[in-house]
Order: sequence, then C-alpha cells, then structure tokens
Amino acid sequence: MRMYDLIHKKKEGKALTAEEIDFFVKGVTSGEIPDSQTAALLMAICLKNMDDREATDLTLSMLASGESADLSAIPGIKADKHSTGGVGDSTTPVVIPTVAACGLKVAKMSGRALGHTGGTIDKLESVPGTRTELSTEEFAEIVNSVGAAVVAQTGTLCPADKKLYALRDFTATVENNALIASSIMSKKLASSADVIMLDVKYGSGAFIKDPEDAMELARLMVRIGEGAGRRVGAIISSMDVPLGRAVGNALEMYEAADILCGKAPEDKLQVCVALCAGMLTLAGIAKGEEAKKMIAEKLESGEAFNKLSEMLEAQGGDTTELRNPAKRRYAPYKMELKAGECGYIYSMNTEEIGLCEGMLGSSRTSLDGSVDFLAGLEIIKKTGDKVSPDDTVIILHTSDEKLLMPAAERLKKAICYSAEKPVLPPVIYGTVGI
Amino acid sequence: MRMYDLIHKKKEGKALTAEEIDFFVKGVTSGEIPDSQTAALLMAICLKNMDDREATDLTLSMLASGESADLSAIPGIKADKHSTGGVGDSTTPVVIPTVAACGLKVAKMSGRALGHTGGTIDKLESVPGTRTELSTEEFAEIVNSVGAAVVAQTGTLCPADKKLYALRDFTATVENNALIASSIMSKKLASSADVIMLDVKYGSGAFIKDPEDAMELARLMVRIGEGAGRRVGAIISSMDVPLGRAVGNALEMYEAADILCGKAPEDKLQVCVALCAGMLTLAGIAKGEEAKKMIAEKLESGEAFNKLSEMLEAQGGDTTELRNPAKRRYAPYKMELKAGECGYIYSMNTEEIGLCEGMLGSSRTSLDGSVDFLAGLEIIKKTGDKVSPDDTVIILHTSDEKLLMPAAERLKKAICYSAEKPVLPPVIYGTVGI
Repeated sequence: MRMYDLIHKKKEGKALTAEEIDFFVKGVTSGEIPDSQTAALLMAICLKNMDDREATDLTLSMLASGESADLSAIPGIKADKHSTGGVGDSTTPVVIPTVAACGLKVAKMSGRALGHTGGTIDKLESVPGTRTELSTEEFAEIVNSVGAAVVAQTGTLCPADKKLYALRDFTATVENNALIASSIMSKKLASSADVIMLDVKYGSGAFIKDPEDAMELARLMVRIGEGAGRRVGAIISSMDVPLGRAVGNALEMYEAADILCGKAPEDKLQVCVALCAGMLTLAGIAKGEEAKKMIAEKLESGEAFNKLSEMLEAQGGDTTELRNPAKRRYAPYKMELKAGECGYIYSMNTEEIGLCEGMLGSSRTSLDGSVDFLAGLEIIKKTGDKVSPDDTVIILHTSDEKLLMPAAERLKKAICYSAEKPVLPPVIYGTVGI
Repeated sequence: MRMYDLIHKKKEGKALTAEEIDFFVKGVTSGEIPDSQTAALLMAICLKNMDDREATDLTLSMLASGESADLSAIPGIKADKHSTGGVGDSTTPVVIPTVAACGLKVAKMSGRALGHTGGTIDKLESVPGTRTELSTEEFAEIVNSVGAAVVAQTGTLCPADKKLYALRDFTATVENNALIASSIMSKKLASSADVIMLDVKYGSGAFIKDPEDAMELARLMVRIGEGAGRRVGAIISSMDVPLGRAVGNALEMYEAADILCGKAPEDKLQVCVALCAGMLTLAGIAKGEEAKKMIAEKLESGEAFNKLSEMLEAQGGDTTELRNPAKRRYAPYKMELKAGECGYIYSMNTEEIGLCEGMLGSSRTSLDGSVDFLAGLEIIKKTGDKVSPDDTVIILHTSDEKLLMPAAERLKKAICYSAEKPVLPPVIYGTVGI
C-alpha cells in the first residue's frame, strides 16, 4: 500500500477502505508518512469529504492508535459528556453531580483550555487542592464511591489525533465534519464510557457558525458512536451569546455552585437540564418529563450540590469557597465596561469575548502555560437586554492590572447595540439520538 | 501575509491575488514555507482550480524565481518548441533543422528523460561527442552562425518549479491544468524565445488521456504565453500509439536522420510538418499551404538534413553514423517479439511501452543516472496493422542481455489484438493559436 495512491484516490472523490484508513493512521502515528503527504490527504478529505463508514473507520483507527481508559473496576453503566467548546461553557460541574445524584455513574475525561475556549480541567483545578491526574485505581474508586469523577486526558490517548490535529491547525484543514467528528469521537470512545452525551455548539463563539452545520456534525458523531457500539446522544445549543453570566475558571465554578443552589441564569440551566435529561434517557434511568422532574428534585433538594462537593473533595479539593459565597476569592483588579449607548445589545461576538478572557490571564496559549484562575468576565447585560449609557455591561477581573485596558478596548468592539430589540436564537436548536 | 490564509482562501474556492501567489512562490523558493502547507495548497488548487489570471501570475512568479536565458546576442526572432512528453517522440531533431533551413532561428532549451518519457538532451547526446552544456556565448554563436542550437536546461532556471514539481509528484497533485501549464510555461518563458510552439500529447502514452483535456491545457498555455507577451501556438497530437517506429535514444536519432532524408513514418512526419508550419506561421515567415510547400522543399533538397549535421557538429558531434546508415552502431543484444495471434493490433499501451524501453536501459530513474544510448525498441507493427502469429511486432535492443526477457514479458501485455480492424484516432486532433 502506498500513501500516494490513497491521496490520489481521495482526490478523485473515492471512498477509502478500512485497511487504507488504518494504513494512513498507523503511518501518521509512527511518523513514517511525511507531513506533506498527510497534509495533501487532509485537504483532499476536506474538499471531497468522507462518508459515514469512512469517518467511523477513521475514528476507530485513531482510537486504536493509543490506549483506552480501563473502567473494568467500575460495574454498571458509565456515562461521559463532551462539549465542542465555547465561552462560559462550564456545564460539567453542574451536569455531572446532578446525574450522579440520579444514580448514573459518570467517568469523565476532560481537556485543558486552548485558544478562545475554556477547559473543564482548568475550571476544576481553580478549586484549591483539586487533583485531576488520577490513577486508574483512584479514578475507579471515586466513581464507585461518589458516583462521579473527572480525570485529565493523558497523552497516550489517541496519539494519531494529536498529530493530525496539530497539522490540520497549520494547514487550514480543520473545518470538515468527518475530521472534526473522528477527532472528538476517537477521544470520547477512548474514555470507555457506555453513554456519551454531546453538546454541539453553534454561533459566534463556536467554531461552527450555522446551526444546521452543527446538526449535521452532531448526527455524524452519533452515528459514529453508535457504529462503535455506544449509546450516544447530542444537543445542538447556541454559543451566539456567552452561556450564563460567568466567563473564567473560578468565576464559572462559583456560578456552577450557584446553579446547583437554585440561583441559575436561565440559558445555562436550560442547557444543563437538557444534557442531564439526555444522559438519563440514554442510560435508561428516566426519560421525558419524568427525567426533568427527577433532575429538578435533585437540584432543589441540594443533593446535586452535595455530590459536586463530595466529588471535588474526593479529588482533594477544598470546597469552602463554593459552599460559602462570602469566602470566595476574587481577582484584585476589576474594571466595569459601560454601555455608553441607549438601546439594546444587538449582538456579542462571543469568540472575541473568549479571547478577551484569555487576554486577562484566564486561558493558556500553549499546553504547558500557566493560568490565572481568578481572571475572567462577569456578563451583566447580554444580547437582547435593554441598556442605558451608564449601565455596566461587563465586569473585567484580572490579577495583572496592565491587562485591563487592552482587554476592555477589544471587548468594547465585540458588542453591538441597536434601537430595536433583536430576535434571540433558541438556546437549544435541536437534539439527536435522544 | 500568512500561508495559512492563502490555503484557507483557495480551499474556499476563491482566487488568489498576484501578491499572494508571489508570496507563496518566494516562500517555496526560499524554503520558508514548510512542505505540509505547500502540499495543502497544491491539493486545494487541484480541487478548486485556478483561473487564467492566477495561472499566468503563478507562471510569472515561478519565472521570476530564477534566471532566464540571455539571448541578447542573437538578433531577430528566436523560436523554441516543447512537447509535453511521450514515447518515440523525437520531433526536435527533425523540426529544428527544418525551420532553421527556412530561415527561422531556433534557440532551444531541453530536458533529460525521466520516468517513461524520453528527453531530447539524451537523444542528442547519443550522437558521439555532442555537447549540450553550452555557455551563453557559445549558444548564441551557434544559433547565429548555423541557425539552431539545443542547450540543456540549467538548475538555475525556475527553482520554484523544481521544488513544486518534486512535491507534486510525491503528493498526487500533478494533474491540474493550472499547475501543469505554469510548470511548463515558466520554463519555456525562461528560455527567452519570442516564438513558442507546443506539442500537447494525449492518449495512453501521455499523462493526459483525453484529447479534450489536452486541448484545454493547450489553450491555457497559449493564453499564459500570450499574456507574457510571446507568440505561442500548439498542436494537440495523439500519443495513443508510439510516434514513428523508433523508441530509444540512438534509434530515434537514426529515424530523425531518415525522416530528413525522405524515409519517414507517416504519423511522425505529419506531426513534424505541423510543428514546423506552426513555428513559421507564428514567426511570420510563411503560413498555410505556402509554409507546407517551403517545408517540403527543405526536406527534399537535403537542406534540412544538412542543417541537423551542421548544428550537431557545431555542438561537437560526430555525424558519420547519421549520414551513413551502414556505419550505425546497434546494441549487441536483440530479441524479436512475435504477434503469436492472427488479426489486428487493437491497442498498444504506450506508457507501458515507454516503461519497457526504460527497463532495457534507455532512460534513467534518477536525474544523475546514466543511460544506455543504444537500448530501445523498433516498432515493426503498430495499432491497426494486420498480423499473423509469426510476424515480428517489436524488436528489443539492449546492451545488457538479462534485461531482454523481463522487458519482453511486460511488452507482451501492453499489446492487445482483435479480429476487427480498430478505428485509429487522428494523429493531430487540433491546433490552438496558429
């Protein structure tokens, strides 16, 4: 088999066989296939596409390129969830304890922040003492005793995806559903969960701008997961506006605690409940109105909040700040961004807002960089809200005073105002597989 | 300017500006752009294409990446010709002396054989003593005194094309008209000739199989050449059957001499006359029937043959063998391939025939490899000819006896027989710009 022939075949728009795809993935993993040939094939895939069967084979080959999580010590059905990434998108610390309180075991693997989107691991680590590098035994023990645990993705997971992703990012070959879906799903399958719940984001803060494109990607990921024998569902939700009111690691953890204690921004609650309901449905625990009722009960009773505390404490975390709002730490430097106009917030460029959060010290630019956990944004007014010139729209938080002005300048440009109230997109556009 | 953005733009099917194309070509030439990004852009160009303006800009940028031939010491109109490559395709030693005898100066730059197609330089060097590495002064002197000279392409010509071609060959991105046309035309423009005559081949022995595709490529090359201010014409000719009866360096030179002495295989003569007529037309010397009459006169009078001898002798060659068929050297080992069937030759896979010629020692596999000038094939029967089992179809020539059997085995498979006489494609399918 020759890589040249595979490139030529895909260039002609023909489907690659499972053997050809495996040859490619193995060659990328071992380094035998040079980047130039890989880049040519990736571009041909972007422009000629892959069918469902090819995307599934690509996913399975990437999965086989590395190790999978060993969940054999955890009896019963295990669930995981994944968001395609957004701004203020911390649903994990709400969803996981809630479904765990409903009796579904969650063995979740998460990544760190990169670029303009946040990472669950960084958010959890903003809780002092929390460890996310857990051994297989430790991880299983916490899931078995508490019902939920979150572990950081290791480098031995899908090494082929790691190499391909770096090259795609360099050669403008990121945007293709088969490549995106196989990258996400290979890592999710490697987490070994039986139930996989996906949150596919669309809008200005997501890498997919159009909801129908997001729907198509969701369908493909569900088909790939089902083809690999897992129970997979997805919601398609808006990232046209930052989700909730907090953007930043500690700020989003505080918000999650507040949601679990009944003080929830409506949009974020809606997404969290939909994800919880989907997971319970896929696991066969409850569905429809019954599931929603169960979720509401666990939130109201405080059981879900207690589960979050238990999980974080089992992972070494000190939950004092989460439990006592008065003891919460905030960044030493703040700045209020005023509307300066009369009317409505017409739009917020959410990708820009995510990048401004990063400028304040909240996200890393390289995988080994450090993070200012206290940096971030409080979104006081959101798209559709009426404002007067003196109204504070966003409060900036940072530990480095000189970062305030540049971030505020950029942030100002990310917000558009109008005289008419804009029509808001639905928070949840649709669902797949649930 | 970032290479990433150029790739993304072409991926979206948008046209690149002249500045962007120049940035790309300069980056490839300097080595600043990594192969992976170049390969991604090449694949995007293959699948999204370039318009005429982009192809012309690419050609001009590649031309500017290296030196051009200095023909300032040669007064008047200078002509060059180029074939896109085939098997038994040695029209240069017939065409050049013929038009030179008609008063058109020919300053030709040629390449060496690679892969299954022959190279003019190797053919000329099979004439003992012939030098093709000439200084600018020597080259000009011979063109001025004799009327024609052929010089080997130097490495300083279009270095960008050299790099791009190697990468295209490796990443299955050869087949695209804009890339093919710019590669050929940048080198032809660098030869600095005023008149450029192209022979675009189609059929089983050419890299373009369909005549309409060849026509389209020819049109693009003519437009690019005209856009660069040259007079350019093309014929589209069949390479579905080897041209003439000789395939091999010395064998093709002997055949060229025979054609100039009135012993011409019909198909090859037709192509040579069409090329000569095109060149005379473009140069404004003669056109139509007048041109054909002039060419016939120069062939019949022996003036054209004398011009070939003069040119080769001026380049150091000993033309004894060309002038005296009895003194010609042939390879020590021969083998006759018999038809073994009754009927007609239905088809000859000409690419395969070219590869068999290579197997006999006639072409090189790397640019610094050596060549057996005497190796090659005599095509006794061609597509459309009637055969009996005992008829010799092809005679194999080589200086290395052990190469005979493997080449004969492969050759056998390249020929198909049928009971009915096949319909032959026209030798010349069409012309452009003349």
